[in-house]
Amino acid sequence: MSIDIPRAVHWHDDAVRIIDQTLLPSEYKEIDLVEADEVIEAIQSLRVRGAPAIGIAGAMGLVASLKRYIDGAASDFRARLAESAERIRGARPTGANLAWAVDRVAAVATAMAGAGNAELWEAMRRECQLILEEDREMCRRIGEHGLTLLRDGSTVLTHCNAGALATGGIGTALAPIYLAAERRLKVRVLSSETRPLLQGSRLTAWELSRAGVDVLVLTDNAAAAAMSRLAVDLVIVGADRIAANGDVANKIGTYGLAIAARHHGIPFYVAAPSSTFDFGLATGSEIPIEERGEGEVRRGFGRQIAPDGVAVFAAAFDVTPAELVVGFITERGILRPGEFGELRGT
Amino acid sequence: MSIDIPRAVHWHDDAVRIIDQTLLPSEYKEIDLVEADEVIEAIQSLRVRGAPAIGIAGAMGLVASLKRYIDGAASDFRARLAESAERIRGARPTGANLAWAVDRVAAVATAMAGAGNAELWEAMRRECQLILEEDREMCRRIGEHGLTLLRDGSTVLTHCNAGALATGGIGTALAPIYLAAERRLKVRVLSSETRPLLQGSRLTAWELSRAGVDVLVLTDNAAAAAMSRLAVDLVIVGADRIAANGDVANKIGTYGLAIAARHHGIPFYVAAPSSTFDFGLATGSEIPIEERGEGEVRRGFGRQIAPDGVAVFAAAFDVTPAELVVGFITERGILRPGEFGELRGT
Repeated sequence: MSIDIPRAVHWHDDAVRIIDQTLLPSEYKEIDLVEADEVIEAIQSLRVRGAPAIGIAGAMGLVASLKRYIDGAASDFRARLAESAERIRGARPTGANLAWAVDRVAAVATAMAGAGNAELWEAMRRECQLILEEDREMCRRIGEHGLTLLRDGSTVLTHCNAGALATGGIGTALAPIYLAAERRLKVRVLSSETRPLLQGSRLTAWELSRAGVDVLVLTDNAAAAAMSRLAVDLVIVGADRIAANGDVANKIGTYGLAIAARHHGIPFYVAAPSSTFDFGLATGSEIPIEERGEGEVRRGFGRQIAPDGVAVFAAAFDVTPAELVVGFITERGILRPGEFGELRGT
Repeated sequence: MSIDIPRAVHWHDDAVRIIDQTLLPSEYKEIDLVEADEVIEAIQSLRVRGAPAIGIAGAMGLVASLKRYIDGAASDFRARLAESAERIRGARPTGANLAWAVDRVAAVATAMAGAGNAELWEAMRRECQLILEEDREMCRRIGEHGLTLLRDGSTVLTHCNAGALATGGIGTALAPIYLAAERRLKVRVLSSETRPLLQGSRLTAWELSRAGVDVLVLTDNAAAAAMSRLAVDLVIVGADRIAANGDVANKIGTYGLAIAARHHGIPFYVAAPSSTFDFGLATGSEIPIEERGEGEVRRGFGRQIAPDGVAVFAAAFDVTPAELVVGFITERGILRPGEFGELRGT
């Protein structure tokens, strides 16, 4: 049985083709991005989202945006490269992978100091494809390591979307689920809806159900009741940035789930590729936490749901302390914070 | 400084006047209910909600619906009373107060076995007014006891709406907030929005902000982060039914908040009048938990937010074990589960 998964981001000719995820689950629409501003808009408005997918889209977008400058002066080409890289890498602050991927492309230019524009552009395009393929491979390895935690009949609770739509491959948190489905294991997934933008109900439920996986959607506030009433075996979430000590920035709500899981004795895992680890930050308190527009909470869904003039807490991420995480499912295996050493070299 | 609070339910001539709470915060509209079916529809669709307010509206609705039968035979009048009482008291299952209030009205009829219809009807109408006035008084006493937990500068986290809109008076969980405001104490309220129907953002934020109280609206999944990042002094929530051992059924999400509060060392209080206690149930596992329509989650806000065919967890309430509750703020004082004895007599 092969898995039918959507492709969140890939090259289409020399444009970045993404699924406009703001329209799901009602409408499936692919759009092509070429200009740096288009890429930044798509990232900031969450047309493409998920830390690994943002990284891939940002890197590809940088390269796509430079194509029309190939015939110009090398100095101009490289100046535009530097300027666009800086703008794109700052499009969203919390995820580690965006800066990581853009920097990888920029490093190609540094390494090819004397190269012509066309040669450099082709090399950067190949680097993007390499990032995509590596991410796809990391997803599969994460899936294989995570699969060791599952058995026929397991129930997994996840939050937000750390699936195919969030990566270049079969996802991070959802990768073990897909591999279980491939092996015809019955695994049930509880997906908390993830206010304000509902990635859990709109995206995770969509991609898992189209792959034939049994999904139950919960409001975020029902997760503790679900842990109490349903037989949840484990929690697996993705990550946007992981500090050197194992503190995890992930979608708002992750921290509360980790606390509730601990209370119920349910193991809490974080699935992420090495590109999500930021060893430059000692602890989670150093991770920049994006504040989104208040309108996403106050006026969600085209309707006013909180009065004007009332303040709104709009942090898009929270930080889960390492001590609440039982293990980090990476492409190198399931690690504890003291075991991150080998990831540093990647 | 007097408090400007909305009246959730009151007599208007011989009709039950309620605020249609489904329209808030965008529109303030009062509607009058006379027929039993209108009352049941209003309760089931949450035009009037909050366990104490539902009780009052149900009792008043029963009486209002009987007026046109006063001139008929006594046997017919009493048969209609019994039939409508049975239907109204079953309109929503979880809250204790609805059956309690309807039964109080029905008990008047039992006590006045030989009375004529008009005399009985007037007595039942007075009983409803008494229930309303007692509830108003209980709210104020709950407020006074709860006020002892607050100081100038306190930050209180609450969930759903246990305010004026949920009662005949100034609320239960919000009563101490209103009394603090009356005394010009600065108290900040964090209100979790309460998916799926958003009573926290639509109703609590609305009634507190119009009374001049500082409110911050959070998505439900942000409560743990708020406890970690903001200086939350205590959590106060209402209750729909409290079992003899102190287990509390309240709006879905309450249990997760109680766990998160315990994790952060933040005291967690439940505010409720004695009419919410059900000493006929030994523990929370005996409390009937209402399952709402899946559409409230799947198609909230007039937009499809989860794919068709995906299952939805639609429990409207959860049960918080007594051991997570630091104290029950009642009209008789702040009690621990072992101290419920004197409430039994009420």
